[in-house]
Amino acid sequence: MTHFSVSCTRCGTPVLPDMSSFLCPRCDSTLEVVYTDAGQVGPQPAGWTGPSIPLPVHDADSFVSLGEGDTPCVALPALGSSLGLDRLTAKLEFLNPTGSYKDRGTVVMMSVARELGVTEVVEDSSGNAGASVAAYAARAGIKAHVFAPASAPAAKISQIRVYGATPHLIEGPREAATEAALAYVRERGVVYASHNLSPYFLEGTKSFAYEVLRQLGPALPEHIVVPVGNGSLYLGAWKGFSELKEGGHIEVIPRLHCVQAKAVMPIVAAFSGEEWASDGSGTVAGGIASANPPHAEEILRMLGASGGSAVPVEEAAILGSQRRLAELEGIYAEPTSAAAFAGLMELVDSGIIQKTDRVLVPVTGFGLKDAPPA
Amino acid sequence: MTHFSVSCTRCGTPVLPDMSSFLCPRCDSTLEVVYTDAGQVGPQPAGWTGPSIPLPVHDADSFVSLGEGDTPCVALPALGSSLGLDRLTAKLEFLNPTGSYKDRGTVVMMSVARELGVTEVVEDSSGNAGASVAAYAARAGIKAHVFAPASAPAAKISQIRVYGATPHLIEGPREAATEAALAYVRERGVVYASHNLSPYFLEGTKSFAYEVLRQLGPALPEHIVVPVGNGSLYLGAWKGFSELKEGGHIEVIPRLHCVQAKAVMPIVAAFSGEEWASDGSGTVAGGIASANPPHAEEILRMLGASGGSAVPVEEAAILGSQRRLAELEGIYAEPTSAAAFAGLMELVDSGIIQKTDRVLVPVTGFGLKDAPPA
Repeated sequence: MTHFSVSCTRCGTPVLPDMSSFLCPRCDSTLEVVYTDAGQVGPQPAGWTGPSIPLPVHDADSFVSLGEGDTPCVALPALGSSLGLDRLTAKLEFLNPTGSYKDRGTVVMMSVARELGVTEVVEDSSGNAGASVAAYAARAGIKAHVFAPASAPAAKISQIRVYGATPHLIEGPREAATEAALAYVRERGVVYASHNLSPYFLEGTKSFAYEVLRQLGPALPEHIVVPVGNGSLYLGAWKGFSELKEGGHIEVIPRLHCVQAKAVMPIVAAFSGEEWASDGSGTVAGGIASANPPHAEEILRMLGASGGSAVPVEEAAILGSQRRLAELEGIYAEPTSAAAFAGLMELVDSGIIQKTDRVLVPVTGFGLKDAPPA
Repeated sequence: MTHFSVSCTRCGTPVLPDMSSFLCPRCDSTLEVVYTDAGQVGPQPAGWTGPSIPLPVHDADSFVSLGEGDTPCVALPALGSSLGLDRLTAKLEFLNPTGSYKDRGTVVMMSVARELGVTEVVEDSSGNAGASVAAYAARAGIKAHVFAPASAPAAKISQIRVYGATPHLIEGPREAATEAALAYVRERGVVYASHNLSPYFLEGTKSFAYEVLRQLGPALPEHIVVPVGNGSLYLGAWKGFSELKEGGHIEVIPRLHCVQAKAVMPIVAAFSGEEWASDGSGTVAGGIASANPPHAEEILRMLGASGGSAVPVEEAAILGSQRRLAELEGIYAEPTSAAAFAGLMELVDSGIIQKTDRVLVPVTGFGLKDAPPA
């Protein structure tokens, strides 16, 4: 007996809970996992002590864990004070096994893959998700192909290779890597383990919300500021907090703000009703340079429902935030992650976030992954 | 009232518990912290739930924490099986805030510095300790100068710079950086926050042992295999386990094995009574390329007392171990850390470690810090 089904996020059409479905056969929308038995949540991560997390896995032995999650929350008094904030906290998501929050999603997606007997997968990524899938595939004994933009940082490509995955470097914008991955999937009949489309990936990133509750408890942040490309952390956080609210563990979902680089801001533009077009280039924040995020519609709904804002940030502000975070607090974020702090500045300046508000910012990826030359 | 003193590890001569003393004024040996009041341990790290850890800090507000420690222990079934081991576990020490175990030592050393009102420090390092001191100095609002070999990996130098510390790149072997740092300390009268000599640093790395007990509990490993350069993890682990044994929390200290690259193996040579000399070059394992470790005498005593072995490893075995760990388990270690796994192979081949023994290997530094070109 299974305790979940998979269906379309828009029209509700059910699909097979396998790894071959990644868009609704009827309306081409994204898919989601729906839990069908309130009494069953599946096996829990080792050592987890918070409220039960519903997971689309059946057997504890299927977990391909590398010790992901349980990342520290650290107060940022100096940076907070420079921004006029009394209660600014970072969650160091780069202290996941491959150096980014993606491991939260990958562990669940690859555990499902192992449970289904998958032996070979294709992923496309700007770098971090590719390294993550490569690592967990290695751990699960699954062969991985990672399609990435040829312009991805050398450290990320090198990391994908080290885990034994095959990198396929694709010239052109981020989307070209997706197209090449899809073509490969169609030609070879290999499973497409896409962190952007697999509904299982978001079942993993939602652990972020559960941990925030366990770690910060009654002092749950009022605002969470998230860098958004395809939005897998944003969507996962929303889903986690929603489940916690439904379960009666929290009363209010924090306001989930979305930050994008001005050069690649499809969500920001859609949220404010602006016209906007780009090929996804022109930003140092490669991890959020996604011009056509497949979950855009859902993210817009969640922005509305959580009372979040969508904020564009300039390149100079991203790099300045990276520097300030390192020099004031000793935290080395990659530019993509620093974008969230640049967005935070905007939210403070516009009065949306106020001096005594409790604010949490995830530091999504390690600066070592996208380092400037020495 | 203070609850500790500092004295010589060899002749017991007491010195001032400040940050200006780093060698015994009488016999030039290294110094150690001695706790003088069994009822007082100092403030404990936030969230710590194991046996009390005596720490040379007085005020909880002095802690310069970045969320270090609490690194995951992960079973290595595939690598274990390839080595003929049933119970091989890794502790992912690279999931500390700057990407290496050094943060355990740095947090205590820099907390002492803050408590003493220090405003500027000098450190010398092959790279990881330098990045760690740079980060915690930033967090503490202390100016840091880091002397490193000009040959240190670009990612490590870049990381030191990002935190706002001043890197001083010194041509020649690892020891040349130490000499340059000492000259700078003498000239400028700046505090020498040396991870190799500060007795406070080892008071930090001993948390490794306390965590191993809390995480693995009754199934404490019988063997721990440690890469050793200047030995700050080895010495800290010994001190931690010794305290736990004195406190009645454990009965037996695990056998602590020391691994060095064949090209730079002062401890291995001294332990086996071999003649040996080198300038500290010739290995990919830059983090353990220390030809004259100041704590050599103590490490040799601890090897004897814990029933450990000292094992040299070839360059090819280091790189092969790095590859196997990544491809079989999805863990990306820097070459220095992979050396421990190469040593483990030797210990298995020589029958010192047997099939059903419980074995723990710390993965001390992230592969991203010393990555091959893409």
